[in-house]
Amino acid sequence: MRPDLKDKLHGTLVPLVTPMEEDHSLKLESVSRLADYLIEGGVNVLIPCGSTGEFPSLSIDERKAVTEAVVKAVAGRASVIAGASDTRLAAVVELANAAGDAGADGILVTPPYYFLPSEDEVFEFMAALDRQIDIPFMFYNNPATTKFNSSLKLLDRLSELKNFAAIKENNSQPVRYYEELQEFGDRFPVIPAGEPPAIFNVLSGAPGFMSVAANFNPRLIGNMLEFAKAGRIEDAFAEFEILRRYRLLFEARNRLGYPMYVIYAKASLNLLGFEVGPPRPPLSPLSEEELDELRQVLREVMKLEVVA
Amino acid sequence: MRPDLKDKLHGTLVPLVTPMEEDHSLKLESVSRLADYLIEGGVNVLIPCGSTGEFPSLSIDERKAVTEAVVKAVAGRASVIAGASDTRLAAVVELANAAGDAGADGILVTPPYYFLPSEDEVFEFMAALDRQIDIPFMFYNNPATTKFNSSLKLLDRLSELKNFAAIKENNSQPVRYYEELQEFGDRFPVIPAGEPPAIFNVLSGAPGFMSVAANFNPRLIGNMLEFAKAGRIEDAFAEFEILRRYRLLFEARNRLGYPMYVIYAKASLNLLGFEVGPPRPPLSPLSEEELDELRQVLREVMKLEVVA
Amino acid sequence: MRPDLKDKLHGTLVPLVTPMEEDHSLKLESVSRLADYLIEGGVNVLIPCGSTGEFPSLSIDERKAVTEAVVKAVAGRASVIAGASDTRLAAVVELANAAGDAGADGILVTPPYYFLPSEDEVFEFMAALDRQIDIPFMFYNNPATTKFNSSLKLLDRLSELKNFAAIKENNSQPVRYYEELQEFGDRFPVIPAGEPPAIFNVLSGAPGFMSVAANFNPRLIGNMLEFAKAGRIEDAFAEFEILRRYRLLFEARNRLGYPMYVIYAKASLNLLGFEVGPPRPPLSPLSEEELDELRQVLREVMKLEVVA
Amino acid sequence: MRPDLKDKLHGTLVPLVTPMEEDHSLKLESVSRLADYLIEGGVNVLIPCGSTGEFPSLSIDERKAVTEAVVKAVAGRASVIAGASDTRLAAVVELANAAGDAGADGILVTPPYYFLPSEDEVFEFMAALDRQIDIPFMFYNNPATTKFNSSLKLLDRLSELKNFAAIKENNSQPVRYYEELQEFGDRFPVIPAGEPPAIFNVLSGAPGFMSVAANFNPRLIGNMLEFAKAGRIEDAFAEFEILRRYRLLFEARNRLGYPMYVIYAKASLNLLGFEVGPPRPPLSPLSEEELDELRQVLREVMKLEVVA
Repeated sequence: MRPDLKDKLHGTLVPLVTPMEEDHSLKLESVSRLADYLIEGGVNVLIPCGSTGEFPSLSIDERKAVTEAVVKAVAGRASVIAGASDTRLAAVVELANAAGDAGADGILVTPPYYFLPSEDEVFEFMAALDRQIDIPFMFYNNPATTKFNSSLKLLDRLSELKNFAAIKENNSQPVRYYEELQEFGDRFPVIPAGEPPAIFNVLSGAPGFMSVAANFNPRLIGNMLEFAKAGRIEDAFAEFEILRRYRLLFEARNRLGYPMYVIYAKASLNLLGFEVGPPRPPLSPLSEEELDELRQVLREVMKLEVVA
Repeated sequence: MRPDLKDKLHGTLVPLVTPMEEDHSLKLESVSRLADYLIEGGVNVLIPCGSTGEFPSLSIDERKAVTEAVVKAVAGRASVIAGASDTRLAAVVELANAAGDAGADGILVTPPYYFLPSEDEVFEFMAALDRQIDIPFMFYNNPATTKFNSSLKLLDRLSELKNFAAIKENNSQPVRYYEELQEFGDRFPVIPAGEPPAIFNVLSGAPGFMSVAANFNPRLIGNMLEFAKAGRIEDAFAEFEILRRYRLLFEARNRLGYPMYVIYAKASLNLLGFEVGPPRPPLSPLSEEELDELRQVLREVMKLEVVA
Repeated sequence: MRPDLKDKLHGTLVPLVTPMEEDHSLKLESVSRLADYLIEGGVNVLIPCGSTGEFPSLSIDERKAVTEAVVKAVAGRASVIAGASDTRLAAVVELANAAGDAGADGILVTPPYYFLPSEDEVFEFMAALDRQIDIPFMFYNNPATTKFNSSLKLLDRLSELKNFAAIKENNSQPVRYYEELQEFGDRFPVIPAGEPPAIFNVLSGAPGFMSVAANFNPRLIGNMLEFAKAGRIEDAFAEFEILRRYRLLFEARNRLGYPMYVIYAKASLNLLGFEVGPPRPPLSPLSEEELDELRQVLREVMKLEVVA
Repeated sequence: MRPDLKDKLHGTLVPLVTPMEEDHSLKLESVSRLADYLIEGGVNVLIPCGSTGEFPSLSIDERKAVTEAVVKAVAGRASVIAGASDTRLAAVVELANAAGDAGADGILVTPPYYFLPSEDEVFEFMAALDRQIDIPFMFYNNPATTKFNSSLKLLDRLSELKNFAAIKENNSQPVRYYEELQEFGDRFPVIPAGEPPAIFNVLSGAPGFMSVAANFNPRLIGNMLEFAKAGRIEDAFAEFEILRRYRLLFEARNRLGYPMYVIYAKASLNLLGFEVGPPRPPLSPLSEEELDELRQVLREVMKLEVVA
């Protein structure tokens, strides 16, 4: 384990959308303004090339370019953790080392995801990765997309790898996050993601939260964390209620496994004027009707300034 | 739809393992002997770079090299359908065009698999692919790995794309295959895969079958198909029973989602002397104890000549 | 194990609907005509008070009365196996003994179903039952309703109980039935139920089949069994196709767990003039539109004489 | 809707175990001491003949006798809500009316559970019940046992029935309870059950909580509710941690669907000297080893006085 990320992973963490042109090519010039907005909004950590960043739709070279652009735009004002997940070990190694060269503070890695691996296979994959890199990694347990749900025992084994630094946990069961935090919270950061039960993970004592909606509403999660710390339960729930009403726009479909959160995050940023463009195939942009409903929620529930 | 594959896809089809050295690099010199063995064994179609070929663990360049090696080794004695699945549309296009350049007869494509797509999104992804390629494609409905289960209606829509040629269906429910064959069997090949219920799909009238075990036992499926065609139900079941007893070695784990079929196919070929090496991480090779059990089944149940 | 049922359980077995008045009280006078129709149609075994007989909606006294009426109507022309499932052991004992007193040939029992039991608990429940009865029992493995899926090992243990006589297996996976038949078929009857994959279980060599649709179409299953025995695979599938087209009317809802098969069986019999009335709450009768579609299928696909 | 229960359903509610002799007959003389203990422990509502009371293993007459005994033992010092669930409508009516005659304050009813009903069928079943009774009912949404998960829309429809009074919600997803409380909390009591995520439902603002463990530890839930109300989040979690450590003894099996909570509640009471006996088949009592572990948790984690 290495302690590099211990003091960096707290408060609001944001898995960034990847800005694109209408023809789906990268639009890196939009990165800078988004980074400024998030840092001014109090975000502590920016994560390019995660699921929200559509990493499975990007080439290795594109992923390197996006990470470089984000590191450059952030310019030391916040931490940068580069998404480096892939089904192919050599690709993860390449991405990890490129992230280090670019100046990222760490990488975020899920278990390999096309073939369902056993716990031993995940350990061996991560251990092989660990031997070939020199950058702190955050292990991401994300059963919804990878179909692999790590036991606490495996997390404990992984924590002994020399570059291990933290865990990101995306579990629909708040009890699981609570148990994980109880078990490991003293030793390394355990950061929850997954907005539907966000309030419960925050009340369990999460040191921070990784929120997709923070792409366009960077202050909400910070407020929730503050209120929880102050024992102001009702106020924390009031923030959560805002988030929940936004997610109601797509929660039913999201629960079936469709990554609506990516599509809505891009659409929201576009409505706020950040020009991040459409998602790449297979993801498809919102209809006019869906955009209208979204506009209304951004304006009336989130009190954001819609410009498009 | 294009008819190129109509007369080619029948009898035994084999998704090939990818031969590797002990250090996991490609071992393309093993391709030739395997191809000879399969063609002499009566196999009609060889499919490099499918799931069995560990495509998610291969780079784009490696996938091109494997397909080229297989086309060259087959040398027109059988058909070659190159696996070209990827989460990234541009990668699928690149692989499809490279397969055409190499002389493959077609490609095999699953829906994109990290993000769960909607039916419309799969159609748009495939339509975009269709516009950028000029090679027949076989659409692979494989809910076990992609979590996407195509409706018959979507299959019908896909069949109108200009390069569409056939369907591979891997469904644990024989009724589904039966219904699909009833619906489309007159128009294009509908080839079942998935060995656990193989006999039932064969009895439903499948024109062929795609079998992983055919990598090392190429005659079994052909026998089953012949017996079924002749109304010799018990004899067909006797062949199935041989296949089932082999699969009992790993079926329980396979059913949980672990791709044991890949690992056992490689191990079986190694025991028969084909030198295809270990699987790449995250897949791990068999233990000595598992190899012993496998040896026994290959010898005593399948009557194959074990040399290692 | 007792051999009493060994020669009785073959060909077509029918779980009977329970005739009711419009006010949902029993209408036992309809039993006689239905029994005649089925026996003339070649049915070998009638099963009152199964799921199709809405046993969970009947009182203990009603279940006794229905069984008595069926035994009397059958009058030795066929076998009668009385459904005796309940969550309460004492109720099963009472029903079993009453069935014996009434002259039934055996009882059909599922594992207790509100609380999910362990395999040991099911064995102990059945063993306690076994000690208190003197009538052959057919154990019903029905995971769809009980959520309990017996291992083959437990079936083997159960077969040692003194009143054990046979198994009814309702599994959506034909491979499971095939394996069960391979394992036990020589020792005692293993009767499949579950119409969606019926043809596959029949081709696997089932000695008989328990069919809900046989309530109104008693010859279809017998034909399928005969064709399969004769190696006439296509003819067997043609019978199956008739059954499947009937089930298409409700299969999608049935697959979600709704017992549409009960509702449609009653409606079909009513349309054929058998006056079995509506189902009891919570089941609700068909709409006029659904009845119209059903009428058409009974007439045109099944070639039955619709009179209502 | 009727308001009878509005002021009664808050704080700690307990679904009572049903005391039994070693031969599984009822042991009603143990009811009185248990009731005294719970009332002195601050419990507001006692619920005989729920799942914890093993209602599926009791006859109608036994269920009436247990309810009568509880009402008599409580003697107005707390509220009594009698479990009246059954698959058979006439049985629910009979139990409801008997509960009213016995002096119970209301009944608790799940949807019918052997056949999976549609939402409309549940409504019609409850409406038919409503017409035949005159006692407030608490509708219990319990997907884990009934496999039916009521929509909020159906709950809204049910709330218009004349005897409707409250909802008990047992959902593993805290977000669902939160949403239900937001929607209905102002109109009628919405009481959570299900201990694994108890703390989250309490923090969401639950007016009370129905806890099986309150059978032997009646003060814990009350403390949790108090701390939450006071914004003392950490203290509330400390109470939850005690409950969780108890449940760790059986949570893994419970999550698979086995009703370990019933078995452990009876065993705990026996260890504390309450002589409630074993569960009825199919449930089986704990092994000596399991009892030892339980003893330790009751003593060391819960600080209870173990006497057996």
